[in-house]
Amino acid sequence: LSPAPTTRDKIIKKGAELIHLKGYNATGLHEILESSGVPKGSFYFYFKSKEDFGIEIIDYFSSLIGGFFTRYLGDKSVPPLRRLERLMEFYESLFNKSGYTLGCPIGNLSLELADINGRFRERINTAVETMLSHIMNCLDEAKRDGSLPPNLEISDTARFIFHGLQGAILHMKVAKSLEPLTTFKRYMLDYLNVGPLHKPRKN
Amino acid sequence: LSPAPTTRDKIIKKGAELIHLKGYNATGLHEILESSGVPKGSFYFYFKSKEDFGIEIIDYFSSLIGGFFTRYLGDKSVPPLRRLERLMEFYESLFNKSGYTLGCPIGNLSLELADINGRFRERINTAVETMLSHIMNCLDEAKRDGSLPPNLEISDTARFIFHGLQGAILHMKVAKSLEPLTTFKRYMLDYLNVGPLHKPRKN
Repeated sequence: LSPAPTTRDKIIKKGAELIHLKGYNATGLHEILESSGVPKGSFYFYFKSKEDFGIEIIDYFSSLIGGFFTRYLGDKSVPPLRRLERLMEFYESLFNKSGYTLGCPIGNLSLELADINGRFRERINTAVETMLSHIMNCLDEAKRDGSLPPNLEISDTARFIFHGLQGAILHMKVAKSLEPLTTFKRYMLDYLNVGPLHKPRKN
Repeated sequence: LSPAPTTRDKIIKKGAELIHLKGYNATGLHEILESSGVPKGSFYFYFKSKEDFGIEIIDYFSSLIGGFFTRYLGDKSVPPLRRLERLMEFYESLFNKSGYTLGCPIGNLSLELADINGRFRERINTAVETMLSHIMNCLDEAKRDGSLPPNLEISDTARFIFHGLQGAILHMKVAKSLEPLTTFKRYMLDYLNVGPLHKPRKN
């Protein structure tokens, strides 16, 4: 007999909220259960270990972000480069609402957990690869419709965008201002519209 | 009577090592004292609280990174854009040695602590501003020697570089590969050498 999925889902959702705010190590199981209204001590009825729970949390965040990326970068009714701009506008609005807190949960867990747990690291890496795929597909469409040059290195460019986005979110959290994200958006768009991609390399 | 500075410094150095690897919340005071060979229970003889200790650790990391940035970006014997490349080469060599672990301690603490402690956030923000100043000074020299255009927005460009670097380090930790850093270095140099900075904006 398996437990009702709703209780398990409630623990994951509340756990994800707390971990998004405070990080994995600073969030106690006790606190998650208490704020989900689940009886203390019943955690191990739902999850084998805190580590197994952590894996579920990473997957939860990955699918949440996958949803955002699909909604904006996969929207065929919008030109591909404009989709990237719309994704950035979505992040700006999201972080305006959160008072420049929280950030990207996958970015947060990357820095917190990549070196201390191999299972977590692999799962986070898969989440990052998925985000990169979404960006690559969008850039590929831009290449095919002629808004990016045919010799574009899609994989490297997607990395460049992903790195800038993660760094801008990190800076936003520390500066408690939207300015880093807005600066990044403008630079990314300039880069894709008039940048070195459109010119031959120096050597 | 104040305690001998060497013991205090030993605790900070060992604490910084552990926090660089595991993060602030996952590092116990007990563990720091034990691995510094300092008697248990003597922590509060040296620091008022774990929070005060955390502030010292942030300052320690900031001055460590300030040293690297001064050494590479302040080296007047080297052309300014080459200095940025040399800083990136230094990071590549550092992270090759560490097996793509640890990353930037200020980046790590940004994501871990910015939302949960205002004193930490302000101190980390000061550290970030210092890193940005080093990059801005270097870009300003490049502008003055003609290797960057005179209308360059130095502050935005420094942010763009800082964001890319932090994101690339984050990705490196998760991918356990130097490739993100190497990609970032190439894109940054392309951007500064043949990028949109050298062309009029579209509108």
